[in-house]
Amino acid sequence: MEHDVVDTLISPEGMLEVLTKAEVVKLLDSGKGGLYNIFRNCALAVLNCGSTIDDGKELLDRYKSFEIDIKQRERGIKLEIRGAPSIAFVDGKMIKGIHEHLFSVLRDIVFVSNEVTDNPKFDLTRTDGITDAVFHILRNAGVLKPHLNPNLVVCWGGHSINRTEYNYSKEVGYQLGLRALDICTGCGPGAMKGPMKGATIGHAKQRTHQGRYLGISEPGIIAAESPNPIVNSLVIMPDIEKRLEAFVRTGHGIIVFPGGAGTAEEILYILGILLHPDNAGTPFPLIFTGPESSRDYFAQINRFIGTTLGEEAQARYKIIIDDPELVAREMQAGIKEVREFRKARSDAYYFNWALKIDQEFQRPFAPTHENMRNLNLHKNQPVHMLAANLRRAFSGVVAGNVKEDGIRAIEKYGHFELHGETEIMGPMDALLASFVAQSRMKLAGKAYTPCYKVIQ
Amino acid sequence: MEHDVVDTLISPEGMLEVLTKAEVVKLLDSGKGGLYNIFRNCALAVLNCGSTIDDGKELLDRYKSFEIDIKQRERGIKLEIRGAPSIAFVDGKMIKGIHEHLFSVLRDIVFVSNEVTDNPKFDLTRTDGITDAVFHILRNAGVLKPHLNPNLVVCWGGHSINRTEYNYSKEVGYQLGLRALDICTGCGPGAMKGPMKGATIGHAKQRTHQGRYLGISEPGIIAAESPNPIVNSLVIMPDIEKRLEAFVRTGHGIIVFPGGAGTAEEILYILGILLHPDNAGTPFPLIFTGPESSRDYFAQINRFIGTTLGEEAQARYKIIIDDPELVAREMQAGIKEVREFRKARSDAYYFNWALKIDQEFQRPFAPTHENMRNLNLHKNQPVHMLAANLRRAFSGVVAGNVKEDGIRAIEKYGHFELHGETEIMGPMDALLASFVAQSRMKLAGKAYTPCYKVIQ
Amino acid sequence: MEHDVVDTLISPEGMLEVLTKAEVVKLLDSGKGGLYNIFRNCALAVLNCGSTIDDGKELLDRYKSFEIDIKQRERGIKLEIRGAPSIAFVDGKMIKGIHEHLFSVLRDIVFVSNEVTDNPKFDLTRTDGITDAVFHILRNAGVLKPHLNPNLVVCWGGHSINRTEYNYSKEVGYQLGLRALDICTGCGPGAMKGPMKGATIGHAKQRTHQGRYLGISEPGIIAAESPNPIVNSLVIMPDIEKRLEAFVRTGHGIIVFPGGAGTAEEILYILGILLHPDNAGTPFPLIFTGPESSRDYFAQINRFIGTTLGEEAQARYKIIIDDPELVAREMQAGIKEVREFRKARSDAYYFNWALKIDQEFQRPFAPTHENMRNLNLHKNQPVHMLAANLRRAFSGVVAGNVKEDGIRAIEKYGHFELHGETEIMGPMDALLASFVAQSRMKLAGKAYTPCYKVIQ
Amino acid sequence: MEHDVVDTLISPEGMLEVLTKAEVVKLLDSGKGGLYNIFRNCALAVLNCGSTIDDGKELLDRYKSFEIDIKQRERGIKLEIRGAPSIAFVDGKMIKGIHEHLFSVLRDIVFVSNEVTDNPKFDLTRTDGITDAVFHILRNAGVLKPHLNPNLVVCWGGHSINRTEYNYSKEVGYQLGLRALDICTGCGPGAMKGPMKGATIGHAKQRTHQGRYLGISEPGIIAAESPNPIVNSLVIMPDIEKRLEAFVRTGHGIIVFPGGAGTAEEILYILGILLHPDNAGTPFPLIFTGPESSRDYFAQINRFIGTTLGEEAQARYKIIIDDPELVAREMQAGIKEVREFRKARSDAYYFNWALKIDQEFQRPFAPTHENMRNLNLHKNQPVHMLAANLRRAFSGVVAGNVKEDGIRAIEKYGHFELHGETEIMGPMDALLASFVAQSRMKLAGKAYTPCYKVIQ
Repeated sequence: MEHDVVDTLISPEGMLEVLTKAEVVKLLDSGKGGLYNIFRNCALAVLNCGSTIDDGKELLDRYKSFEIDIKQRERGIKLEIRGAPSIAFVDGKMIKGIHEHLFSVLRDIVFVSNEVTDNPKFDLTRTDGITDAVFHILRNAGVLKPHLNPNLVVCWGGHSINRTEYNYSKEVGYQLGLRALDICTGCGPGAMKGPMKGATIGHAKQRTHQGRYLGISEPGIIAAESPNPIVNSLVIMPDIEKRLEAFVRTGHGIIVFPGGAGTAEEILYILGILLHPDNAGTPFPLIFTGPESSRDYFAQINRFIGTTLGEEAQARYKIIIDDPELVAREMQAGIKEVREFRKARSDAYYFNWALKIDQEFQRPFAPTHENMRNLNLHKNQPVHMLAANLRRAFSGVVAGNVKEDGIRAIEKYGHFELHGETEIMGPMDALLASFVAQSRMKLAGKAYTPCYKVIQ
Repeated sequence: MEHDVVDTLISPEGMLEVLTKAEVVKLLDSGKGGLYNIFRNCALAVLNCGSTIDDGKELLDRYKSFEIDIKQRERGIKLEIRGAPSIAFVDGKMIKGIHEHLFSVLRDIVFVSNEVTDNPKFDLTRTDGITDAVFHILRNAGVLKPHLNPNLVVCWGGHSINRTEYNYSKEVGYQLGLRALDICTGCGPGAMKGPMKGATIGHAKQRTHQGRYLGISEPGIIAAESPNPIVNSLVIMPDIEKRLEAFVRTGHGIIVFPGGAGTAEEILYILGILLHPDNAGTPFPLIFTGPESSRDYFAQINRFIGTTLGEEAQARYKIIIDDPELVAREMQAGIKEVREFRKARSDAYYFNWALKIDQEFQRPFAPTHENMRNLNLHKNQPVHMLAANLRRAFSGVVAGNVKEDGIRAIEKYGHFELHGETEIMGPMDALLASFVAQSRMKLAGKAYTPCYKVIQ
Repeated sequence: MEHDVVDTLISPEGMLEVLTKAEVVKLLDSGKGGLYNIFRNCALAVLNCGSTIDDGKELLDRYKSFEIDIKQRERGIKLEIRGAPSIAFVDGKMIKGIHEHLFSVLRDIVFVSNEVTDNPKFDLTRTDGITDAVFHILRNAGVLKPHLNPNLVVCWGGHSINRTEYNYSKEVGYQLGLRALDICTGCGPGAMKGPMKGATIGHAKQRTHQGRYLGISEPGIIAAESPNPIVNSLVIMPDIEKRLEAFVRTGHGIIVFPGGAGTAEEILYILGILLHPDNAGTPFPLIFTGPESSRDYFAQINRFIGTTLGEEAQARYKIIIDDPELVAREMQAGIKEVREFRKARSDAYYFNWALKIDQEFQRPFAPTHENMRNLNLHKNQPVHMLAANLRRAFSGVVAGNVKEDGIRAIEKYGHFELHGETEIMGPMDALLASFVAQSRMKLAGKAYTPCYKVIQ
Repeated sequence: MEHDVVDTLISPEGMLEVLTKAEVVKLLDSGKGGLYNIFRNCALAVLNCGSTIDDGKELLDRYKSFEIDIKQRERGIKLEIRGAPSIAFVDGKMIKGIHEHLFSVLRDIVFVSNEVTDNPKFDLTRTDGITDAVFHILRNAGVLKPHLNPNLVVCWGGHSINRTEYNYSKEVGYQLGLRALDICTGCGPGAMKGPMKGATIGHAKQRTHQGRYLGISEPGIIAAESPNPIVNSLVIMPDIEKRLEAFVRTGHGIIVFPGGAGTAEEILYILGILLHPDNAGTPFPLIFTGPESSRDYFAQINRFIGTTLGEEAQARYKIIIDDPELVAREMQAGIKEVREFRKARSDAYYFNWALKIDQEFQRPFAPTHENMRNLNLHKNQPVHMLAANLRRAFSGVVAGNVKEDGIRAIEKYGHFELHGETEIMGPMDALLASFVAQSRMKLAGKAYTPCYKVIQ
C-alpha cells in the first residue's frame, strides 16, 4: 500500500531555536553517539499524528523514505523534510501545531543529550540526580510556570477506547476547562485526546486564551501515541520512568479514564508512590472515572487493587461513574487542598519536590524476556514494592503490544512469561483477559494476540 | 416547574463601557421611549444560552422575576442581575463568554438608540440610509477589521437539526478552521453552533489565537437562538432585515446547512440579492452542504428554486454532499476570487459596499395576518422580486414558530394564510410539509403545529 | 525662503479607521458645511511638529501648497498627502507618532461634526449638554479608561520657556514617571514637552510599557502648539473651553510650570472652578513649580492671585521651588486623596462628573475687540466670576499672540483694550509686562509686540 | 560617611527563574567553589546604579553590611536583600529595571557556573570552545533573536565624559532610535547611557515598543559601570575577553564615542580582529564620532592608529564629527551591507559565527605587574598581533583605574611598567597623558593618579 508523502522546508515559528554548529552535527550524525535516529523517529511520530497506527514498527516500515535535515540560515535553522506523512498537512502546508511539535522534539533531544546525559553534574544512578534531571528537562522546555496557581490535571487512560468512553472524556475535559483547569496527558489518541478537545471548548467559552495542553512523551512510546496538535506544550522525556515522574511532579491531580495495560501501569505507579510511608500525609487528588458503561470495568480494577495492595491503596482514590461535573468539582477541591498544603510549607507549586519517589520507580526497567520472568510478584514485600513490580509487569505488556523494540522481541522470542503467587497472578490474568475482551489492548479493527503468559 | 436562578453583580471585563448618566437613565426606563424592556429581554436570552428552549415567549414566562440594573461605580458601570438562569454560571460564577455578551447587548442597544434611531443623519427610509446605519452599528461593535484579509464564512442552517447533521457541521467548521477561515452565524444552536465548535478545534491546532466567531442577532430572534458562548463578537442588529444585510455585507461567502423555514428564508434572501442585475458580475461563494442523509433534502430545495426562480438562480450556488474538506477548499477558492475582485476595484474587504440590495430586501416586513395574506406570490414580476416575496412568506412562518410576537398573534388569530399561483404554492407547500416531517421546524421533542396554511 | 516638503501616501496603522462614503465626502468638501479646511489645517499643524514656528498664520503661509486627500482602498482609507513639511519624516518615512496623530485628527473632526455638532441629542446651550459632548468626544477617542487607577497628571506651562526651566520640567516628568504617573499636556513645546520626555525615561526604567502621554488640543491652538510625537493619545476638542474642561475632568491633578499669558489663563480657569462653592470640599492637587530661577516668577503670580482673588484662592495650590522629587511625592499623595474621595462616592475615576463648572467657564469666548473691551474686570462680583473674566482677558492675549484669527484681527484693528479697576488692572499690567520682559510670550528669537493695552 | 540602605524581599517579575535546590545551595555557598561572593558583588553593583562611584573597591567598602539571600517559595524563589543602596528604590520600592537586573545576574551566574565552567563539553582552551561558550551564555540569556533583522548598534565610549559629549551621544542615540536601530553598550554611565536614553525617545516617537537596550558586562567591571535601568536585557559574561567577543558577535556595527583607556582598549580590540586576514572581506560598520569639541581627540586617536597599525587599520573606520543624523544614516547603510552579506551566505543574523577571532583576543589577560611588564609592544609582529598586545596594555590601565583587584594591586605594588619601542610608546604615552588631561580616566570630581608608567 502506498502512503501519500510530502516534502517541505520549515522554520521554527514562535520558537526561537538557535543551535550551534556542534549541535547540528551531532543531530545529523546517524552513527554511534549521534542523535539522528532518535530525532528522525520522534519527528516521524509527530508528523503521523491523527493516523490510526499505534504500532511503532509499522510506522517506521511505512515511511521508510522519510528523512529530515537541518539547514543553517540567516534567521536560524530550518528543517528540510522529505517523505513526510501527508496527514500532517492541510493543502500542502504543515499544521502549525505539528510544526511546533517538531521543534519541541528537536529541543528536547538536543538538551537531554548535551546538558543531561553527557553532563557529569547529573548523577543518574541516584534518586536526587534523576529528579534533578527531570526538573532540568522540564525547566528547559518552559513547562515550569512559577506564577500559575496549581491547575494542571493529568488525564490518564487508554489510547484505544470506545466512542462512548471517548465522548465522556471530552465532557470531563469540558467541565475542567470551564473551571480554568489545564490538561496534561501522554499525548496520544483516545483518553489522552478527548479531555484536551473538551477543555479547548471550555476554555474558549471562558476566554481562557492561555489554556495549557501539556503532552509528555518519550521516544519509545511516541510512535504509538503521537501527539495531538492541540497539545501546545510538548516534552520528550528520555525514558518511561522519567516520563511518569514528570507527570506526578508537575501535575496537581490525576484523573484516570478506562484503558488497558498502560493505564494499569500508570495506576500502579501512582499508587506505589502514594503508598510510600513518606507520602502518607501528602494530598494528591486521584479520581477514576468513566461513563455508565465502564462501571464494571472500574469495579474490577478496584477489586484487583483491593486484593493485591489492600484497603490503604483504595483509600487514595475516588471512583466516580458518569458525572463529569462532579469529577471536575472534586478535582478542583482536591487541587485547592494541594495548594494550601504547599503554600503552608513554601513548597513550589510548579514542581512537587516533596513527593518521595522510591528508586524502584525511577530506575528504567528494560522489559526483556529475562527481566519479565524474574519479576517478584509475591506479597512478601512492602506494599509499595509490590506495586513497583506489578507496574513493571504491565509496562512489559505495553512494550510487547505497541513499542517497536518490544514487538520485535516478541516476534523473535515468543511471549513473555510472568510468574507469581496465585493470589496475585489470578486477578492479574483475569484483568488482562478482560482488557483483551474489551479491545483495550490495541486500536479497534485489529485482532490482538497476547504478548504474555501468566504462569502461576 | 421551578428553574434555578442566580443573583450576581458583574463588571465589564475587557470591554471598556463607559456610559453617561443620560444613557443609564434611558436604559433603565421601562416606559415608552425607554430601553429597559428590550435590554432586559435580550440580556435574559443571552443568559439562557445552552438551554433547549427555542420559544421566546416560553423563556420570558419562565424567568418572570429576572431583573437587571445598572450601577455607576468608580471604575465604570456594573450590572446588578437578579433571577438569572443558573445555566449561565459555573459553580456560581458567570461564564466569561456570556458575561461579554451581556455587555455587547448593552453596547448595541445604547448605540442603536442614541446614535442611529434618534439621529436625523440616518434617513432610514432610503436604501443608502439603511446601509449607512448597518455600517455604523457594525463599526461601533468593532466588527469591521480593515487589516484582515477576507476570511469570514457565514454559516446558515437550522437551529433544530439531527445529531448526524450537527456533527457534519462541526466537521465543516473544523476544516474551515484548519484553513484560518473565521465563522459568522446567527448565534443559536444546531447549524449555528456546530461550525464554531469545529473551527475552535481547527484554530487551536493551527494556533490561530485570533479566530473570530461572530454572531449576528436581533431582538426578535435572540430569545430563540441565544448566542453560544464561543461567539466572541456579538452584534445585535435592530431588526431582521438589517441582520440579514449585516450577514451579506460582512461575510465573504456563505455555507448553508440543512434547516427549516428560517434557512429557506435566508436562501431566498441571498438568491434574491444575487439575482439583481447589478450584482450579476459580483463573485459570492455560496455552498449548500450536508451529510449523506441530507442528499434528498438539498435535492428538494434545488428543485424548489429551479421551479420558482429558475436556472439562473441555481447557477449561483454549489451543492456538495458529505465532503467537508471539499467544502472548505471550495470556499477558500471562492473567497480568493472575492479578494481579487475587491482589490482590483479598491473595494473594502471588511464591508461589501458594492453589493446592490434592493429596498424590497431592506424594508422591515411585519408578518401580520394581513401582510401575509397579501403577499404577491406569482411569477408576474422580476425574479428577484419574487424571491423577496417568497422570503417574506418564510419569514412569517419563522415568526409564527419561534418569535414571541408571532406566537401570540397565532394564538389570537389562528394560522396565517398564504395565497399564490399553483406553480409556486404547490412546491412551497411540499417543502414546508417536508420540514415538518423532518422535525426541522422546532427543537426535537416538541410536536409541531403549523402556523400557516397554503391556499392555492 | 524655501521649505522642504514631501509627498506621501499613508494608511492608518494600528488605528482601525473605517469611514463611510458620506463621511469622506464631507471631509473633502471645502465649501460651507464641509470639513476640509479645518482638517487640512490641523493635519498641517501635526506634520509641523518639532519646528520652531508658534504662529498659526505663518505656518499656513509657509506651506501653501499643502494638500491632503482621502482614498478608499480595500483595507480602508489611505491619506494622500502633498507638500508636507519634511520635518515629519525620517529618511522619507513619516514618523509613526505623527502618522498616528494624523488619524486622531481625522477621527475627532469626523466625530465632532457627525455625532456632536449635528446631533440634536446634545444641547450645547446648556451646561450638562456641553459636559455630555466633552464626555462623548473623549470616550470616542479612547481616552476614558475605566480600569485604571487615577494617575493622570496634567502639566501646564509655557511653550516658550528657557533651557533651565525646560530641563526642570523634564526632571519633574522623570520623577512622575518613576511613580507610574501618566502625563497630560496641551501638546506643544516647552513645558508641554519636557514632562513627557522625562516620564518616558522614568517609565522605561520602571518597565511601564503602557505609559500614557495624552495631548489635548483644539483647532485654534494646534498650529502654534503642534503635538510632540511622544504624545500617544491625541484628542482635538472643538474649542478652547471644551479643551480646558477636558483637562480638568480627565486629569487627577495639575502641575503648573512657568509660562506666559496662556499659563495665566489656565491658572485662572482652574482656580475659578475650584473657587465655586459647590467644589469647596473636592480634593484637587494643584502644584506650581519651577527651578530656583523661577522663584520670583511664582512669587509674582502668587501675589497677583492674592490681590485679585484672595487667600481662599491661594489655599488651593502649593508652590514648590526646585524639588522635582517633592513635587512628584506631593502629587502622588494628592491623587491618592482624589482616589479615596471618588471611591467613597462611587464617582468615576476616569471622568470627574462631580466637578461643578459654571457656564461662564464653558461658553466659548470670542476674543473680538469689542468683547475684550467689555470684559468686567471689577471686584463687584463673586470671586469665581472675576476669575472667569480674568481668564477671558488672558485668553484674548493668547489669541492675539499666536492664533491665526487673532493675529489677523490685531493686524487689522490694532491692539485690544482692557478696562477695569486699578486694583486689578495694575497687577495685571505688571504681570503681563514681566512676561514680555522674560520672553514668555513668544518662542525665543522673536521680538514681541504686545497685542493689548491695559486701560485703567 | 553613612549611606542610606534599604531591606526588601523581591520576587522575579516577568522572569521565570526556577532553581533547583542544588543551585540555591551553590549560590549561597561563600566557601571555595561557592558562588556567593560573585553573586553578592554583582548584585550590589546592579543596585548601586545611577550613583557616581566608579570604583569597585569603594563600593564594596561602602556597603559592607549588604547581604542577599534566596528563599524558596511556592511560586519560585525570592531574594531577601539587606543593606541595599537606597538609590535603587523609589519611595521604598525597587525600580523595576533594577529588579530585573538582579535576576539577570542570578541567571547568568548560575548558568555560567553549572552549564559552562563545570561542563566538560566546553573546551575553554580552544578557540571554538570559547566561542561556543559565549554563544551558549547569550542564548541562555535570550539575547539571540533569530527573527530580527540586523539592527543592533554597539556603542562604546567613556564612562567619564563631559556634558557636551554626553548630550551628543544622546542625540546620536535619538537618531538611531528614529531609524528603529537598537542599542548595545557596556552598561555604565556616560557614553554607555546617553545613546540608550536618546534611543528611548526615538523609539517612543516611532512607537517601537520592542526597542532593545542590551547591556553586556562582566563581574570585574560591573561595580564601576553599573547598568542603567533602561537596559532591558542584561548579560554578565564571565570575563572581559568573552564580553568583548559578545559585543562583536552580536552587534551589527559599532559606534565609538570619546573615552579613555577602556575605549582605546575596545578600539584596539575591534581593529585587531578586523585586521585579521580572514576578515578582510567582512563588512563591519565602525564609526568614531563626537561633538565639535572632540575633533582633536579623534584626530589624535587616528594618528595613533596610523602610526602603530597603519593605513589598513584606518581604512576600517570612518570619523564623523558633529553630525548625529549622518552617523545614523551611515550606520544604517553599513548594517544593510552586513545583512546582504550574511543573507548571501546563509550566515546567522543573530550571531556572527564567521568572524575570525584569534586566540590572542580570546585568552583572558590577567593584568599582573609581571604580565604588563612583559607585553611585546614592538612592530616586529603581524599588525593584528600588535593590536592584541596594545589592547592588553590599555586593559591593564583600566584595571588599575577602576577594578577592585587592580586597585588593590596598585596600592600594594605601585604602578605598572610598560616597555616597548619608541615609535609606539611615544604616541601611547601622549595618548594616555591626554586622557588624563581631559579627565577621561575617572568620573569628574576626582583627581587622577596614573597607575602606569611608560618606559621607552
